[in-house]
Amino acid sequence: MSARKGRIYIQEVAPRDGLQNEAAFVETVDKIALINALSECGFTKIESTSFTSPRAIPALRDADAVMHEIKRKPGVVYSALVPNLRGVERALAANVDEINFVLSVSETHNRSNLRMSREQSLSELEAIASVLKGSEVSLNVSLSTAFGCPMEGDIDASEVDRLVDQVAALDANGVTLCDTTGMAYPVQVANIGAEVLRRYPELTTTMHFHDTRGMALANVLAALDVGIVHFDSSLGGLGGCPYAPGASGNACTEDLVHMLELMGYDTGIDLEKTVDLSRTLEPLIGRELPSYLVKAGPRWKLHPVPDNQY
Amino acid sequence: MSARKGRIYIQEVAPRDGLQNEAAFVETVDKIALINALSECGFTKIESTSFTSPRAIPALRDADAVMHEIKRKPGVVYSALVPNLRGVERALAANVDEINFVLSVSETHNRSNLRMSREQSLSELEAIASVLKGSEVSLNVSLSTAFGCPMEGDIDASEVDRLVDQVAALDANGVTLCDTTGMAYPVQVANIGAEVLRRYPELTTTMHFHDTRGMALANVLAALDVGIVHFDSSLGGLGGCPYAPGASGNACTEDLVHMLELMGYDTGIDLEKTVDLSRTLEPLIGRELPSYLVKAGPRWKLHPVPDNQY
Repeated sequence: MSARKGRIYIQEVAPRDGLQNEAAFVETVDKIALINALSECGFTKIESTSFTSPRAIPALRDADAVMHEIKRKPGVVYSALVPNLRGVERALAANVDEINFVLSVSETHNRSNLRMSREQSLSELEAIASVLKGSEVSLNVSLSTAFGCPMEGDIDASEVDRLVDQVAALDANGVTLCDTTGMAYPVQVANIGAEVLRRYPELTTTMHFHDTRGMALANVLAALDVGIVHFDSSLGGLGGCPYAPGASGNACTEDLVHMLELMGYDTGIDLEKTVDLSRTLEPLIGRELPSYLVKAGPRWKLHPVPDNQY
Repeated sequence: MSARKGRIYIQEVAPRDGLQNEAAFVETVDKIALINALSECGFTKIESTSFTSPRAIPALRDADAVMHEIKRKPGVVYSALVPNLRGVERALAANVDEINFVLSVSETHNRSNLRMSREQSLSELEAIASVLKGSEVSLNVSLSTAFGCPMEGDIDASEVDRLVDQVAALDANGVTLCDTTGMAYPVQVANIGAEVLRRYPELTTTMHFHDTRGMALANVLAALDVGIVHFDSSLGGLGGCPYAPGASGNACTEDLVHMLELMGYDTGIDLEKTVDLSRTLEPLIGRELPSYLVKAGPRWKLHPVPDNQY
């Protein structure tokens, strides 16, 4: 394996996927400060909040205020998760750069997570695509449970293909394959990723892994091997999974950047600044985060020789 | 990437590398019970203890008793780590199946860890190889800091090659490339692994990763891709790193087995039994372990549909 070259694009999702399941409400001013600080780390895109029902996701009930008050850095795409047309109206009023529409590949998960059938979600998506047509706002579609559903189990890869077909038919800019509860494994990631890239080379295809079963970075490696260059990750590994309490969250941004940079890739991200920022999260949310880099430091951090040398 | 086929061999190292840095002394009877239970999980080899100075590694001061009292399961190799000829005499008296000799690729690390120069270590190794010649006891050589030294930093890959040459010249059965403090990364693992396999196809080449920076499973994937089929790992991810207090330990056995089996490989290991056994470790050592599987369960563990379905 020769050293890798090329640019990898990392979307930071801590402000949305990271925070949405946290028990402690993070104050609006702290969310804004976090997003502003992330903007200075080199991320190309920041999933900043979600426009969902405040009852469904109280942790992000301040979406409008957050989007209005953050400082927009030129070149950074400020994205927001949206599950329906009503959310899109709020998101557009708040000047998002990108709508990240979410639906699940698993019918059961879509119903339990979004309280709609997949058909209803697809109708919403169609209406949203019409609204956005010709606007400056881009449309990404996140497909939850693309690698398995915690209730249904295995998801047939042809179901993923079928939904990607529908996303592509609506002229969306991108699709994200989400491993919502950490069920993806390397062979599967390579197969599904290669197929989507082969069929839709013009679609920006992003992989969104959770580290629930410790495979997030191995899955990234498998995805890189088939040509995926866009990844979602979360500062500190923030992000829970309601089906595995106590388990790890999203792929951890600083651990991912560290691995990619060691391999020779260019992420455009300032790792030191990112690790420093990650250290500010634990006091905000009141629990320890799974970040490895926060604990161990980067590979190049050397240690003094102990004085027991013979 | 098509589903993988073939056998992967996992050496369980929790009783040695796992326990050696633990603050709490695990009682001899508990160590014996652990090794006996590991013997029933399907591991081909168990690194059971080390024959080192009781002052240097007090946690393993009961090596002789452990080796004498475990129940040997036919087909399982019971290995012990040894840094010098004196240790080999004790290990042979205790009927080990394999001597796992250790030295570091980094001169600084060898001196600080073993209180010898590498030349002195190599002299010990030469004497040990003579003692073992013609015996039933096999010889493996573990090369610490093969992927980087926490004090020296980068290790030139040619230094690894030079030491593997010397190991091969002594007719050792195997060599283990150890990522002692979690500095290995995928491109490097592939390069070093491919080179050793190319030069010494007859030598059993094992990879020993630590998860200090979260890359253990990604490194396994990179090693698999160049043909490595032998790995060390530790139940529960037990195993510390004196240079990164609080950081993760060895590659976690159950997380590794889970990934390999999902990919299609045959590990010969009973995952459910292994996870159950892993759960018994925390009370023994009095701290939480980094195992993902213990927290989240395997991928195929499904969850009930919540009753908020619309």
